[in-house]
Amino acid sequence: MPHKEFRDLVDPETAREAVFDLPIPAGTDRVSLQDAAGRVLAERVDATIDVPGFDRASLDGYALRSADTVGADEANPAHLSVVGTVHAGEEPGVTVGDGEAVEISTGAVMPDGADAMVPVERTDRASAEDDESAAGGGSLLVRTSVAPGANVAVAGSDVAAGERALGPGTHLTPREIGLLSALGVETVPVRARPRVGIVSTGDELVPPGGAVDSGRGEIYDVNSYSIAAAVEDAGGEAIRYPHVGDDWDAMESVLREAAAECDLVLSSGSTSAGAIDVVYRVIEELGELVFHGVSVKPGKPMLVGRLGGVGYVGLPGYPVSAMMTFRTFVAPAIREAAGLTVAETATVEGVMAVDERYPEGRHRLLPVGLVEPGPDELNGDVTVEQPATAVDDPLVYPVDRGSGATTSLTRADGIVEFSADRTSLAAGERVTVSLFSAAGGPPSLFGVGEDDPTVSRALDALESPRYLADGSRPALRSLRIGLPDVAVVAGPIESGYDGVELTRFSREWGLLVPDGDPDGVSGLAAVVDRDLRFANRTAASGVRRSFDAALDDLASSTDRDPDALASAIDGYDVAVRAHDGPARRVVAGEADVGLGLRASADRHALGFVPLGDQPVRLLANPDRVEKPAVDRLHRAVDDLS
Amino acid sequence: MPHKEFRDLVDPETAREAVFDLPIPAGTDRVSLQDAAGRVLAERVDATIDVPGFDRASLDGYALRSADTVGADEANPAHLSVVGTVHAGEEPGVTVGDGEAVEISTGAVMPDGADAMVPVERTDRASAEDDESAAGGGSLLVRTSVAPGANVAVAGSDVAAGERALGPGTHLTPREIGLLSALGVETVPVRARPRVGIVSTGDELVPPGGAVDSGRGEIYDVNSYSIAAAVEDAGGEAIRYPHVGDDWDAMESVLREAAAECDLVLSSGSTSAGAIDVVYRVIEELGELVFHGVSVKPGKPMLVGRLGGVGYVGLPGYPVSAMMTFRTFVAPAIREAAGLTVAETATVEGVMAVDERYPEGRHRLLPVGLVEPGPDELNGDVTVEQPATAVDDPLVYPVDRGSGATTSLTRADGIVEFSADRTSLAAGERVTVSLFSAAGGPPSLFGVGEDDPTVSRALDALESPRYLADGSRPALRSLRIGLPDVAVVAGPIESGYDGVELTRFSREWGLLVPDGDPDGVSGLAAVVDRDLRFANRTAASGVRRSFDAALDDLASSTDRDPDALASAIDGYDVAVRAHDGPARRVVAGEADVGLGLRASADRHALGFVPLGDQPVRLLANPDRVEKPAVDRLHRAVDDLS
Repeated sequence: MPHKEFRDLVDPETAREAVFDLPIPAGTDRVSLQDAAGRVLAERVDATIDVPGFDRASLDGYALRSADTVGADEANPAHLSVVGTVHAGEEPGVTVGDGEAVEISTGAVMPDGADAMVPVERTDRASAEDDESAAGGGSLLVRTSVAPGANVAVAGSDVAAGERALGPGTHLTPREIGLLSALGVETVPVRARPRVGIVSTGDELVPPGGAVDSGRGEIYDVNSYSIAAAVEDAGGEAIRYPHVGDDWDAMESVLREAAAECDLVLSSGSTSAGAIDVVYRVIEELGELVFHGVSVKPGKPMLVGRLGGVGYVGLPGYPVSAMMTFRTFVAPAIREAAGLTVAETATVEGVMAVDERYPEGRHRLLPVGLVEPGPDELNGDVTVEQPATAVDDPLVYPVDRGSGATTSLTRADGIVEFSADRTSLAAGERVTVSLFSAAGGPPSLFGVGEDDPTVSRALDALESPRYLADGSRPALRSLRIGLPDVAVVAGPIESGYDGVELTRFSREWGLLVPDGDPDGVSGLAAVVDRDLRFANRTAASGVRRSFDAALDDLASSTDRDPDALASAIDGYDVAVRAHDGPARRVVAGEADVGLGLRASADRHALGFVPLGDQPVRLLANPDRVEKPAVDRLHRAVDDLS
Repeated sequence: MPHKEFRDLVDPETAREAVFDLPIPAGTDRVSLQDAAGRVLAERVDATIDVPGFDRASLDGYALRSADTVGADEANPAHLSVVGTVHAGEEPGVTVGDGEAVEISTGAVMPDGADAMVPVERTDRASAEDDESAAGGGSLLVRTSVAPGANVAVAGSDVAAGERALGPGTHLTPREIGLLSALGVETVPVRARPRVGIVSTGDELVPPGGAVDSGRGEIYDVNSYSIAAAVEDAGGEAIRYPHVGDDWDAMESVLREAAAECDLVLSSGSTSAGAIDVVYRVIEELGELVFHGVSVKPGKPMLVGRLGGVGYVGLPGYPVSAMMTFRTFVAPAIREAAGLTVAETATVEGVMAVDERYPEGRHRLLPVGLVEPGPDELNGDVTVEQPATAVDDPLVYPVDRGSGATTSLTRADGIVEFSADRTSLAAGERVTVSLFSAAGGPPSLFGVGEDDPTVSRALDALESPRYLADGSRPALRSLRIGLPDVAVVAGPIESGYDGVELTRFSREWGLLVPDGDPDGVSGLAAVVDRDLRFANRTAASGVRRSFDAALDDLASSTDRDPDALASAIDGYDVAVRAHDGPARRVVAGEADVGLGLRASADRHALGFVPLGDQPVRLLANPDRVEKPAVDRLHRAVDDLS
């Protein structure tokens, strides 16, 4: 059986159905009412009691015989004698006879003899002192006539004993909890949450909280935790099985244990031949292989089989691939087994912001981000035949960090799925986005730009912003095609830009050295001419652009070749993404000099050799200047800078 | 301070703001990653490590020096020597020199000396046996040229140490859990869920599971459970405080205890003067009254104050009023305190199905149900200026059972709020419905009609149907105005009807008597002429219509007055809603004879005196015949009848 993979790729629809057809044998739980919200009723619940259980006064007023009120009105009230009182929660100690009335509270039991009640607002009462004719009561003027049954909820009028109350499959929200309470139900039978075992495979995975040895290529286990959370979102109960390392016997026993204890078993990233062989062996002994390989990107290596009475799905290893494959193929089956509506997966309609082309037609799951366009941005811009149904359809852009990046997870809001017969999507085309989260939607703000400490703190003041700290160059490129709401650009700008400058502030950049400057780094020349290990920033960053400009200046003032200066720097090519990265390398003793901001030097108590000031510009997309979050960021930056 | 109520009603907007301004002092929790999904990040999380932590191979293939591949292509491959292997999770034991390559797995550490990698698909390898020139390796043909860094994820390229990873207020979904895992984070600081105390007040309330004494007017406590579930929905932690009965000292101490232990205290239905006095006293001693009375219906008696450092809201007592008031005024404040987006309250646009008029302009919260219209049903039918933005906008109808009925909770899907300057809503008018549940939406089927055991079982086969067993007459009325998808009508139909008859079946009705028929009830005449206690059905039911028709026949055949026959029956006016109700009364010994179906007699092992067969018709709304759930119900009824 080994190495069937990719011989016969199944098509995505077949794969979806095959996962849907896996046995996921979830049963029934009985839970108390306070634990029942969010669960799904396993069986029909019929009322076993009448609600209300007695004829009940609907208002505060007087219980009486309706016949005694015939013809009564404001001008000609009926005169009755008050013969007693009934409060809610007490048994009437009195009977209503002809010409009599009983004071009654909302919710109280109607006394025998009375067939209706009149609200207190339609009566007047003479006190007992004024009128001693009635024992303990007094006389009552009733200024309206009422029909039999008026203002009385008769027993069983809300729900009658024997009536169907809730059907099987009912999703229990606070309202159903209320109805079940009214029926006196203490525990309810609910669909059990399918137990989904998640087996961590991969020699290099370390659980969060443990220590990773980067030299050995260890990384933290992402999928066990993200897929577990996604399983719970889909109505399942996630059970993580311990990391199994490269001991194949141990892995085999964990798979068997999970198959025995769970209703579905998942693993991800069993890329090594040894792991795949173990999975094959266990499937062969306990069940059968359904397929291995789907014609979809990503997700091609998906492996589906049966382990005895339960299903098994092997997901891809890269986090965003695993998540997309789970959402697309596995979550619907778990939802179904949990009794949830499969269709509850939230989708939004959106409009492609950019063209997207592919070299070959493949069924694809494209991770996408959403951004809310400006008020007039989409007018006349939608290319397909349908009119824009809602002015606030979001713009949709592909997340292109690659499936290996864990940040792709948080940069994407959902998935656009498209079939193998398409090789491109055009800007302006309408697409359906399957959201990762039901409460998902565009972030309040979408920004791209420099990793800057002031901007970072300003973002803390906003609700759900998305800011991609990819650097100043990518920010300008992205702003050129109108994608982000704002771009944050630091350092020199060679040519014009397409944004509206909202504000700018200045930041000091220079060289970071250990406290006390043991190497006596006086300026740029020291880095070039001396044997010091340097930590650089990436070319996308504004600090690097200022640094390179300074290097050019040094070259021309000393009549040297700029490239030669750069090559003379030990570590010029060791560039880090974060503004704080070089400082951390200096602190760790991995570099003697780092490129960075005074803010980093201060934060890490490092020495700082200033090389200049550079402007940091907050540029707005001209179509989005009016967006509230753009204004909030502008104000927050001004407050902090 | 007592009895300030209703002197100065505040307007709804002021009330909403006042509740929003109450102190709800929720703090911060630290939770493990597996418990963090669904929570809200309390503080910003910056990366403390690089991800990946090392230069990482992105594919399976060969690590090499890019310079060695210059000019290589399919026709002119570069020839390299394979000098070792690196798997994921192991430290490279080899260095790559000029003309050398190292076999490398996806995710493995790039060995020193290599600056790029080539995927295995672009290479060919001679095995070691064929080529003994390389120690433990063999020769490799590389059929492409690569740039420095190709297919390598450099350390920190995903997330760099020091980079902002997630901002405060981030809602933690499976994707954020994934990113936090990648950063090795084991526990995260999250916003604490506000602790919301729910104090049950009312002498007549019994917790579900206890025994109610209907003679004393006891009922099950609904609001403590439904509001608790709604509190959890809004992101709070609900804490129910024990029922306090009519002991005012005990109630006072429970209020004080809740104020000391919680971030917000709620009660509902403190209708008795004693309870209100206690609330006033505690508020006066611990804090201050903010207002008592809002100009909104329902919700007028809402009482808001401060109990020391926390807020207090007294909700109305009727379940649907309590729920609507909670949703409208209190839930937004809890969401805000929990760090959730206030605007996450789900709304849908809909179209009024019927006219709704009010005698006076009052700000109103109208409980409404939703029903999905047929495909062409709304064309040209929407009266307001906006075009129909979506063909599937639901129809919206008021739920008119009254706020005292607990079934109003499950008959309604949401609330339409409208202001005091309106006294009517017209059919066809577009309205915004604030949904009770985020996952809410129209039920799959909306039916009205007879309480029938066959139909009830057929409904079990449908996903999320709504069926109001209000009887045959209301069903015909409702179908006339085109509201439900289907009507189930039993017994004779006097005039024409407006539906399409999908199917009909026959059911046997008659008299239910104790097993063995101790009273020797031979037929209808016995009920009229003898001193037997009778349990009737409501006039809305089809069985009752057949019974009344039979009584008319008996009257004319015996030359008597039909009304006189009816009055001669002891219990003719004691009518119950459910088809099973009379049988239950006979079983309980509360009646000697009941009106009902043979199915009820069989179910309860009662004797049955057949009086006739009656048709049960499944009628479809002509606009909704094509609705899938209508067809499913039709088939289910046919299968069962």
